[in-house]
Amino acid sequence: MVKVGIIGGTGYTGSELLRLLSRHPRVTIGAITSRAEAGRNVADLFPSLRGRCDLTFTDPEGEGVFAGCDVVMSATPNGIAMTHAPRLLAEGVRVIDIAADFRIRDIAVWEQWYGMKHACPGLVAEAVYGLPERHRAAIRKARLVANPGCYPTAVQLGFLPLVENGLVDLSSLMASAVSGTSGAGRGAHVPMLFAEAAESVKAYAVGGHRHQPEIAQGLAQMAGQPVEFVFVPHLVPMIRGIHATLYARLKDPSVDVQALYETRYRDEPFVDVLPAGGHPETRTVRGTNLCRIAVHRPKGTDKVVVLSAIDNLTKGASGQAVQNLNLMCGFAETEGLDEIALFP
Amino acid sequence: MVKVGIIGGTGYTGSELLRLLSRHPRVTIGAITSRAEAGRNVADLFPSLRGRCDLTFTDPEGEGVFAGCDVVMSATPNGIAMTHAPRLLAEGVRVIDIAADFRIRDIAVWEQWYGMKHACPGLVAEAVYGLPERHRAAIRKARLVANPGCYPTAVQLGFLPLVENGLVDLSSLMASAVSGTSGAGRGAHVPMLFAEAAESVKAYAVGGHRHQPEIAQGLAQMAGQPVEFVFVPHLVPMIRGIHATLYARLKDPSVDVQALYETRYRDEPFVDVLPAGGHPETRTVRGTNLCRIAVHRPKGTDKVVVLSAIDNLTKGASGQAVQNLNLMCGFAETEGLDEIALFP
Amino acid sequence: MVKVGIIGGTGYTGSELLRLLSRHPRVTIGAITSRAEAGRNVADLFPSLRGRCDLTFTDPEGEGVFAGCDVVMSATPNGIAMTHAPRLLAEGVRVIDIAADFRIRDIAVWEQWYGMKHACPGLVAEAVYGLPERHRAAIRKARLVANPGCYPTAVQLGFLPLVENGLVDLSSLMASAVSGTSGAGRGAHVPMLFAEAAESVKAYAVGGHRHQPEIAQGLAQMAGQPVEFVFVPHLVPMIRGIHATLYARLKDPSVDVQALYETRYRDEPFVDVLPAGGHPETRTVRGTNLCRIAVHRPKGTDKVVVLSAIDNLTKGASGQAVQNLNLMCGFAETEGLDEIALFP
Amino acid sequence: MVKVGIIGGTGYTGSELLRLLSRHPRVTIGAITSRAEAGRNVADLFPSLRGRCDLTFTDPEGEGVFAGCDVVMSATPNGIAMTHAPRLLAEGVRVIDIAADFRIRDIAVWEQWYGMKHACPGLVAEAVYGLPERHRAAIRKARLVANPGCYPTAVQLGFLPLVENGLVDLSSLMASAVSGTSGAGRGAHVPMLFAEAAESVKAYAVGGHRHQPEIAQGLAQMAGQPVEFVFVPHLVPMIRGIHATLYARLKDPSVDVQALYETRYRDEPFVDVLPAGGHPETRTVRGTNLCRIAVHRPKGTDKVVVLSAIDNLTKGASGQAVQNLNLMCGFAETEGLDEIALFP
Repeated sequence: MVKVGIIGGTGYTGSELLRLLSRHPRVTIGAITSRAEAGRNVADLFPSLRGRCDLTFTDPEGEGVFAGCDVVMSATPNGIAMTHAPRLLAEGVRVIDIAADFRIRDIAVWEQWYGMKHACPGLVAEAVYGLPERHRAAIRKARLVANPGCYPTAVQLGFLPLVENGLVDLSSLMASAVSGTSGAGRGAHVPMLFAEAAESVKAYAVGGHRHQPEIAQGLAQMAGQPVEFVFVPHLVPMIRGIHATLYARLKDPSVDVQALYETRYRDEPFVDVLPAGGHPETRTVRGTNLCRIAVHRPKGTDKVVVLSAIDNLTKGASGQAVQNLNLMCGFAETEGLDEIALFP
Repeated sequence: MVKVGIIGGTGYTGSELLRLLSRHPRVTIGAITSRAEAGRNVADLFPSLRGRCDLTFTDPEGEGVFAGCDVVMSATPNGIAMTHAPRLLAEGVRVIDIAADFRIRDIAVWEQWYGMKHACPGLVAEAVYGLPERHRAAIRKARLVANPGCYPTAVQLGFLPLVENGLVDLSSLMASAVSGTSGAGRGAHVPMLFAEAAESVKAYAVGGHRHQPEIAQGLAQMAGQPVEFVFVPHLVPMIRGIHATLYARLKDPSVDVQALYETRYRDEPFVDVLPAGGHPETRTVRGTNLCRIAVHRPKGTDKVVVLSAIDNLTKGASGQAVQNLNLMCGFAETEGLDEIALFP
Repeated sequence: MVKVGIIGGTGYTGSELLRLLSRHPRVTIGAITSRAEAGRNVADLFPSLRGRCDLTFTDPEGEGVFAGCDVVMSATPNGIAMTHAPRLLAEGVRVIDIAADFRIRDIAVWEQWYGMKHACPGLVAEAVYGLPERHRAAIRKARLVANPGCYPTAVQLGFLPLVENGLVDLSSLMASAVSGTSGAGRGAHVPMLFAEAAESVKAYAVGGHRHQPEIAQGLAQMAGQPVEFVFVPHLVPMIRGIHATLYARLKDPSVDVQALYETRYRDEPFVDVLPAGGHPETRTVRGTNLCRIAVHRPKGTDKVVVLSAIDNLTKGASGQAVQNLNLMCGFAETEGLDEIALFP
Repeated sequence: MVKVGIIGGTGYTGSELLRLLSRHPRVTIGAITSRAEAGRNVADLFPSLRGRCDLTFTDPEGEGVFAGCDVVMSATPNGIAMTHAPRLLAEGVRVIDIAADFRIRDIAVWEQWYGMKHACPGLVAEAVYGLPERHRAAIRKARLVANPGCYPTAVQLGFLPLVENGLVDLSSLMASAVSGTSGAGRGAHVPMLFAEAAESVKAYAVGGHRHQPEIAQGLAQMAGQPVEFVFVPHLVPMIRGIHATLYARLKDPSVDVQALYETRYRDEPFVDVLPAGGHPETRTVRGTNLCRIAVHRPKGTDKVVVLSAIDNLTKGASGQAVQNLNLMCGFAETEGLDEIALFP
């Protein structure tokens, strides 16, 4: 059994981690911290865990709070993990940050988008970007994993076979993606009220979203050169799920994109390429660690359209973090991640 | 391993059975039938099962379709199981009917409410009503189990401690319950369209709902005498979940109802009595086999209000059927039923 | 034209007032105040009003802010209107409070439920309870109207014919009601987030809800004696709408309740009694000032079930306030209230 | 008063027409037909119209059913209006078809996409495409108006200023659009059930959607040359609303697109260009005839992103049909179309 600590488990990525780890056959949760909720039973805050989790939140500043933990997973807002990571790593504890502190290589870019000074820029270069479909070998050996963002997971997995193989015009990359409201976290904000978000759709942050540079960095790394990537996120009335619709111009319209995707993802346990003509539905991945993908070639054009669906809290956050944990610990990659989506 | 056959698995109770049994550690699915979908892959109809279930629907009239099956579970509309049960039982196969064919003891009442002639009235007396919290011992030995309806499960578990103990005025029993739309099944009916059922609430069948006599029969059996029970079902804009609000007059207002419920359900694996003052939310039982209950005593009155929440497709249908299967097969009652509800 | 001022128009009752008054043919809006938003364009806060309302929020403490207004309508949280009413009335301005400051006659009861000291208890006796179907004549002449709460409107209109005529056992009154989330206002509270309130139902405040004493007072006034009234409110995943399911024991089960309701409400412009056997849907009253009602007599019992549906923000708040305004000003009662609900 | 007849008013475009025309100050409804519902009260089928519409459905084949009507509006499925139009026009009745029979100029293209033979190809050339922002003058004089589709309205209004002025690379046009489920009509189809469509998003018909050729035809007509247009429609869990996200490469990235849109739409009563940086929400146009548009220029690229939001049943269907009716009859263009969207 591996002993895992959780920093800041009061939000949605925290509750999702608890749901997954409570049933993980090779993990025990050593401690879960929250400054605001210290002393409170976890099941009081998350009633779905009544009878399944008898942990109590502890103060993150307490002495030896993560003593004996092999891995610490950080489910805090941005800017917190970087204040804990140096000490934990020094103590020999491996760290997975589900937030964004270690995702962007260029410190100046990170500081501009996240509006704060980085607390440990020296660690950023060491951090492994936790997208197993790209960096599996490095994740296995990593001390510090930067778990990808939700949109970046859906978009990068969708573009990956095309960009890795140099098949598309890198100035034509566009993603129009929609997300459920849980992507905004558990903070109490008026636009996320049911009465505001139900029965409506809107784009947001079209002028600049933090996931744009993260995705652009990943695509550039796959391509070996910079890319021009337009990103349009939208809010839709559902709790969980991201659906990304990707668009690019093919250099050679005769390439068999269906075969390309099937081949690239054949051995991936969590990427499911639908048969030609398919349309992935977010409900079929809800609560699971799957990314379902379909590829289309609009008639009479040299364009390709890729559809990519994930659960933003599972493959887009805590599920992928558990997948990374499994890799780091030498477990089967699917351990504790065998959920089947509710239908309906 | 126990080999299970499924009759008519193309609806929502069928897909829920498949979800649960696909992960059940002591069950293999021997066959799943559908007249309409014979020959089709199960995962084509239920894309959430892609990669997790490689069964093909077979014709229910085929020769030896359930050969080797120990138990057959019927997930068909009402009136089908009764045409299969006699033959299956004769062949030594045990049967669980998730529909209503064997729930009502009085054949005339059944025929009136279900609008057809019963095909095997002689078997009704033998059928055990599959509410484990009332009939556990009999279920263990049953050849034929009549799995309770969704509303009847929520309402009977809510009233059970009061009625079993003779604590309430039996002419004062009322249940106002709401259900998600999956309770209406997968048939294509205009009132169940998203555009009709979203952003609205209505009561329905207040003049008479089939679950009224089923509940009245169960309460009368608990009480040892007839009861007067008013039932008002409602449709609300959610997919899964039943919330039943129960009302009764206490004979003795000084009784400690909280203690009564906690004691009665202390050892029940799937009934969770909330602390005093609680309000169960359907989302905390979604996809699980739990019934969460809270008890209230409105100030200045001799009334009791009980709140009872289940997932209509799990504890209200297929989950309870698996619980009954576990009892019949001598498995741990919770085997394959350890899901934690998604949050959020 | 009547000139109307609005106090505190930044919440949902405020935006609903603006929607209705912007199109009212006999009203001009003289001023709309908000401490927090003073100086901001109304349409910035409520983008649905872009191009239809060019008002700017003003400071409620400003000199002569309501100068020239004939009527001031208060759409603030509880406890604000009572600080403005004495001065406004002294200046000859009539006042409609959409919040609860003047609804409860017994000051001690009000102070207990609302947790504050009443600022002008002397005015409470003068205030007319703004339920036109009960108090039309008094509203016409009122200086100060206490607009009813949302649940109290649906429940009182539902019970009214039975209780006014002494037809029911006054110890048997029960209402199980569901509300959309807009009833909780525009405050940013975690339980009202889309990710928390969607795909779930729960009862709340079963131990005591502020609308219980308001309803009990109204029913007692109709009955001429105290009543025992149990109230169970629930939250459901919709934006607007209240559906109340009422239950009572008839003294004489042979009474023709359908005829009773049709007669009582024949001339009411905003109460629609459905044909026997009907089930009102909240969507059919959404955005309108209607209350649709159906009456049922469960077979084999001496009980009556009444179903009552309103839009909590229209007939349950701002629409009824405009109805009261029309009465006070001698306009046709339906002026500015002729909306037809969207379908679907 | 103008007398209007409605063919086939039992679907969602029919109920929306009834809602709008019932309150239109210069229109009376002469007749409304339905083969299936002949003899039934309109308000039985559409309970939101109880007390507001006392029409009865009549048989469309009846003698003189539209006698005395000045205009007939067809709200039927595709393929019906073309069987009525020749006779009506011959009788001097003007016709507005809300379906697709007269939208596509190229009969072969129409027959391929709609899978039937056109009944009156000779009339197609005469029909005026009812997008007032493009064809106002012609609509005024038209005998036969082809009301645009829902997606085509949102997408064409979004691209119009750019394409009319030759500012974009015509091989780079892409629209990713989402629609509420009412766009699929009132037919009872499993994928449109609440239990299937709620809490999920999917793209559909990416291999080919009937609105693609309609939009491509419109854009080509604006451009004066063929265009390459990729269209990706999606289904989202809401009842009403379309949000289209448009993407194109600017020939000259220095053009002031914000000013371009503000100028082009300055005098349009139903197009609202948001201030720079805006994001239109579908809820702000729900039930209204408005199209709200925002324009964005992603940093560091030569691309433009346009966001366009309409109500698919109002500006996307029946509202635009009433706008066309107003133009044809010489009424104020906004007559009967002054609804303000509910908020929330």
